[in-house]
Amino acid sequence: MIKAGIAGATGYTGAELIRLLERHPQVRIGWLTSERNAGRRYCDVHPSPWDRELITLQAALDRAGEVDVAFLALPHAQSMGPVRAFRETGVTVIDLSADYRLRDPALFARWYGVEHEAPDLLAQAAYGLCEIQRAAIAEANLIANPGCYPTSVNLALHPLAQAGALQPRIIVDSKSGVSGAGRKPKLPYHYVEANENISPYNVGYRHRHIAEMEQALNPARGTGPDFAVTFTPHLAPFNQGILSTIYVSAAAGVRERDLRALYADAYAAEPFIRLLPPDALASVRHVSHTNCCAISLTPVRPEDAAGADYVIVSSIDNLIKGASGQAVQNMNIALGLEETLGLL
Amino acid sequence: MIKAGIAGATGYTGAELIRLLERHPQVRIGWLTSERNAGRRYCDVHPSPWDRELITLQAALDRAGEVDVAFLALPHAQSMGPVRAFRETGVTVIDLSADYRLRDPALFARWYGVEHEAPDLLAQAAYGLCEIQRAAIAEANLIANPGCYPTSVNLALHPLAQAGALQPRIIVDSKSGVSGAGRKPKLPYHYVEANENISPYNVGYRHRHIAEMEQALNPARGTGPDFAVTFTPHLAPFNQGILSTIYVSAAAGVRERDLRALYADAYAAEPFIRLLPPDALASVRHVSHTNCCAISLTPVRPEDAAGADYVIVSSIDNLIKGASGQAVQNMNIALGLEETLGLL
Amino acid sequence: MIKAGIAGATGYTGAELIRLLERHPQVRIGWLTSERNAGRRYCDVHPSPWDRELITLQAALDRAGEVDVAFLALPHAQSMGPVRAFRETGVTVIDLSADYRLRDPALFARWYGVEHEAPDLLAQAAYGLCEIQRAAIAEANLIANPGCYPTSVNLALHPLAQAGALQPRIIVDSKSGVSGAGRKPKLPYHYVEANENISPYNVGYRHRHIAEMEQALNPARGTGPDFAVTFTPHLAPFNQGILSTIYVSAAAGVRERDLRALYADAYAAEPFIRLLPPDALASVRHVSHTNCCAISLTPVRPEDAAGADYVIVSSIDNLIKGASGQAVQNMNIALGLEETLGLL
Amino acid sequence: MIKAGIAGATGYTGAELIRLLERHPQVRIGWLTSERNAGRRYCDVHPSPWDRELITLQAALDRAGEVDVAFLALPHAQSMGPVRAFRETGVTVIDLSADYRLRDPALFARWYGVEHEAPDLLAQAAYGLCEIQRAAIAEANLIANPGCYPTSVNLALHPLAQAGALQPRIIVDSKSGVSGAGRKPKLPYHYVEANENISPYNVGYRHRHIAEMEQALNPARGTGPDFAVTFTPHLAPFNQGILSTIYVSAAAGVRERDLRALYADAYAAEPFIRLLPPDALASVRHVSHTNCCAISLTPVRPEDAAGADYVIVSSIDNLIKGASGQAVQNMNIALGLEETLGLL
Repeated sequence: MIKAGIAGATGYTGAELIRLLERHPQVRIGWLTSERNAGRRYCDVHPSPWDRELITLQAALDRAGEVDVAFLALPHAQSMGPVRAFRETGVTVIDLSADYRLRDPALFARWYGVEHEAPDLLAQAAYGLCEIQRAAIAEANLIANPGCYPTSVNLALHPLAQAGALQPRIIVDSKSGVSGAGRKPKLPYHYVEANENISPYNVGYRHRHIAEMEQALNPARGTGPDFAVTFTPHLAPFNQGILSTIYVSAAAGVRERDLRALYADAYAAEPFIRLLPPDALASVRHVSHTNCCAISLTPVRPEDAAGADYVIVSSIDNLIKGASGQAVQNMNIALGLEETLGLL
Repeated sequence: MIKAGIAGATGYTGAELIRLLERHPQVRIGWLTSERNAGRRYCDVHPSPWDRELITLQAALDRAGEVDVAFLALPHAQSMGPVRAFRETGVTVIDLSADYRLRDPALFARWYGVEHEAPDLLAQAAYGLCEIQRAAIAEANLIANPGCYPTSVNLALHPLAQAGALQPRIIVDSKSGVSGAGRKPKLPYHYVEANENISPYNVGYRHRHIAEMEQALNPARGTGPDFAVTFTPHLAPFNQGILSTIYVSAAAGVRERDLRALYADAYAAEPFIRLLPPDALASVRHVSHTNCCAISLTPVRPEDAAGADYVIVSSIDNLIKGASGQAVQNMNIALGLEETLGLL
Repeated sequence: MIKAGIAGATGYTGAELIRLLERHPQVRIGWLTSERNAGRRYCDVHPSPWDRELITLQAALDRAGEVDVAFLALPHAQSMGPVRAFRETGVTVIDLSADYRLRDPALFARWYGVEHEAPDLLAQAAYGLCEIQRAAIAEANLIANPGCYPTSVNLALHPLAQAGALQPRIIVDSKSGVSGAGRKPKLPYHYVEANENISPYNVGYRHRHIAEMEQALNPARGTGPDFAVTFTPHLAPFNQGILSTIYVSAAAGVRERDLRALYADAYAAEPFIRLLPPDALASVRHVSHTNCCAISLTPVRPEDAAGADYVIVSSIDNLIKGASGQAVQNMNIALGLEETLGLL
Repeated sequence: MIKAGIAGATGYTGAELIRLLERHPQVRIGWLTSERNAGRRYCDVHPSPWDRELITLQAALDRAGEVDVAFLALPHAQSMGPVRAFRETGVTVIDLSADYRLRDPALFARWYGVEHEAPDLLAQAAYGLCEIQRAAIAEANLIANPGCYPTSVNLALHPLAQAGALQPRIIVDSKSGVSGAGRKPKLPYHYVEANENISPYNVGYRHRHIAEMEQALNPARGTGPDFAVTFTPHLAPFNQGILSTIYVSAAAGVRERDLRALYADAYAAEPFIRLLPPDALASVRHVSHTNCCAISLTPVRPEDAAGADYVIVSSIDNLIKGASGQAVQNMNIALGLEETLGLL
């Protein structure tokens, strides 16, 4: 039986992680941390059946030896130090923050506004997009769990981009449920403001997740991006889910059947990817409360022309495949368990 | 043309009031105040077409002479002083807080936790439940606009209770949209917490609006309440509206047709009361974005027995008939305008 | 490994049942039926990962021998015949319709408008309110899964009513998510009609679930009801969940601590009942997507007086504890499995 | 006082139209039609304060002389005949269907699947996009009220496209509330299906509103489209509103300040267009329950480069500016009234 600890357990990501691990047949939870709520019981912070006591991060470090794996669901830029501390105890770390996702520390500094404190560890971290990086994850002791938007976008684009089947200008129009904004009360997330509304935010080249998308699309380090992503996130009135509507053009000579073949080659055997038939379109409902990513591909004009335009729609549950479910999947891979355990 | 000022203009009540007054054919808005947002333009605080500058309450007092009527949408217990200051300038005041609703200062102190600062003014204030207190409102220069829950409950109960047609034990189960909780971000009103949820609050004899309900039901001052209200409010996942489901028993000898006759006598000519036919039930949709109160009456057992149990359902838009619409209706009555102006 | 069949698999109840059984470690699904969608694949009817072919009820009967347990999620009054046919093949039947819930065939005829076709089987059926009827369920081959509203109400009332701690007049004000109304499109369930709305229905002594509530509260057959329930259901704008706000008066001499003791005696060890502490109130969020029932008890007046009034709030997920989760729990009990399997 | 009739009064568009006309100071409603509900009272079909009797379309034609203006809110392809009949009585007609929007009958036949029955009238119809076609509307007796999506898109694009400031490839990603799908119950609009979901539909070159967008962008008749619109509509979980996120590239030599100047020239004096400042983004809340269109423009890269990419966001209330509000605005223009009457 594997013992797991969760640091930052009282956000929506932490709550979903606890729910998944409680159900996982080979995992027991060792401790839960919350700086703000240390000393309280979990069920007094979230209306839920889990009644464990919350401890501080420091207390968790003192008890690091009790667990085999630590999930860190801490705010961005606050995970770098704790990751090192946990790694030094030998615990496998799955970091749900952005701190170890970008391979280039300069890129991290540019997008997150702080210097990276642990470039040495950065070099050891695997990027935990499971279906794409499975081999690296299996070898790693430190896994950077991908962002929610990049998960939905990169799963949809990777097989096509890697094969050279796409032209470099890509437009991504994403719609996220409000849980993606975290549990801290702020005016835009007040019920009355978000309900009966949909609103774009961070329009232009401004959302930090663009860096993860372009890193995945342009894997050669140090070269300027060939693929450039125009990304517009929207806050939409539902709790969980992301829908990304992606506008691409096929490379010269590439036809619809070629694109479908690339998807099938990459994903036909994947348990958590649902390739929809040509006449279907992905929606959030396809994947709500699951660890799946649904993907549909539709030509803008019906004829199967080379070089034509396509609309790819990709949907995930932002808290599961976009965060905690993928974290569990990463744990399964890293610890040599069956990959789907606790996730079906 | 009447000039109006609004103090506390940036809450949901203030926004609705501006919307209504902008449309009122005989009113111009003179000033809008907001302590927190003074100096900013209204449209930068609320996404709306109103681009007036926000001023402080003090600046509004300096400009009190510019307006004929002042609407005060300030927090409870913070309205007492400003009401006096505005009254001293001769301006008609419509106070949307609770500060002047309870005739007995001791009762105010008990429910709101502070001594009343202006018991002399309290004696001059009219309780602005328009359909019930029309004559008093027409005479008054200071009108206490009723609470949202009491408006829905008292309009439904008054004609029956006043006639002695009800037994004294009354149970009120109310469901309110989230705008009733105000615009300040707090965890229970975070979209993800309120959505896909319904939750009771202030259960037991704890919600301050009980005092207004019992005052209206037991109009003789100083006597103990004959009518006792068990009141359970619930936070429900919609923006605007209140539905009150009210459980009553008819007094001995009173039959269903008697109750319907009492309603018809009281309300048949009222433009903002909709008495539903016997086979219909009030819902929030009946009254959304209107100044109406819909009322239905249904016997628990089909037979028209004397002394039987009934379910009364009453619905209003909490921001309109439950706040700003009734405030405009009160202004129309107090200033001798046609009562429905700006409200149809 | 237990094999299960589901008749009526394409409603919301069926979908939830499939989701739960897919995750159950000791169950495999044998067949799924849908009269309307026979011949189609499940994932073409519901956006979901389950791609099994749907067969007809007749084809399921032909394959009854392939399964150990049949779940029937058919419309009311259409389950009586199929239950007999499945029982004759020796299969354990868990019927999610109302057809075998009322012990008295005359009562069934009165509330459902048709004569009961199988009074002999009725006598063998166990009422599957797990925490209350566990022993009978363990002995039964035919289990009538309770209605959603009665599950929320009877779990809250049974320990108190059975002990004689309550006065007989009980008022239940329930709020249900829209999935409780089924998947068939009708105007009241159109998004625009149900959203930004809450509406009572079947007010008066008219909802069929009253019969189940009164049967459970008055267990002695043939005697008139001592407990009479006034029940008002409301359609509320969320997908899943029921909140029942219940107004009771304690019997003479019974105090708050007595009521809490009765709850603790009955439920302290129950894995799916959450007794909330005195200062907490049940909400739908407490139990969303779980098989739990949360129960809170609050005195209307703070003093712990004998014979006082109380507000009990009970919440369940209507599709899980109110339908498919309780069906799985019943299967676990009837087949001698650990009761919580697949449900945590 | 102008008399108005509404044919097809019981859909969401009709209900909104009645609400607006009831409030219009110079209009009285003469009759309301509904084929399905003829003979019933309006308030029995919609929970609303309007209690007029519904008549048939034929009865309305018999009473055409009683009204000055007829609003036709009939289904597409069912308006052509009635429009002719009303026009022959001399009544000004505002047609809210698509039947008179496309100038080219062949284009109508291609997109709507039926031959146009009245090409002669088509030539007389004005396209009622008020801010763009004001002069033509003022001269017309037959006005084709624009579609909801084209209103949001064309108001945003027209000043820029007409000036040659845009490159021809345009991507429009629109999100509509469910009222846009009409009031007829169908599975995708069932509350449980649409809630906690967002779903694209008609992806590819398939939504009929594309024809209106390209007609407006390419005003020279008979020439092939230079501007080609890739349009993806999404069904989003709210009642009212459309947000269109539009991806454009500026023509060579055109800078951000040029685009803003074009908007200001076109719209600075328009009462129903809100040009947002550079740091703001349009959302549905900006315009809910108003006749306004909010427009924001944001460069994808911060530098003000010629030929750069921009994200334009445009929002309207689909039932008001996208249908009934614009219809009233068209009536005001056509009948020589003040354009904003009844709409502020």
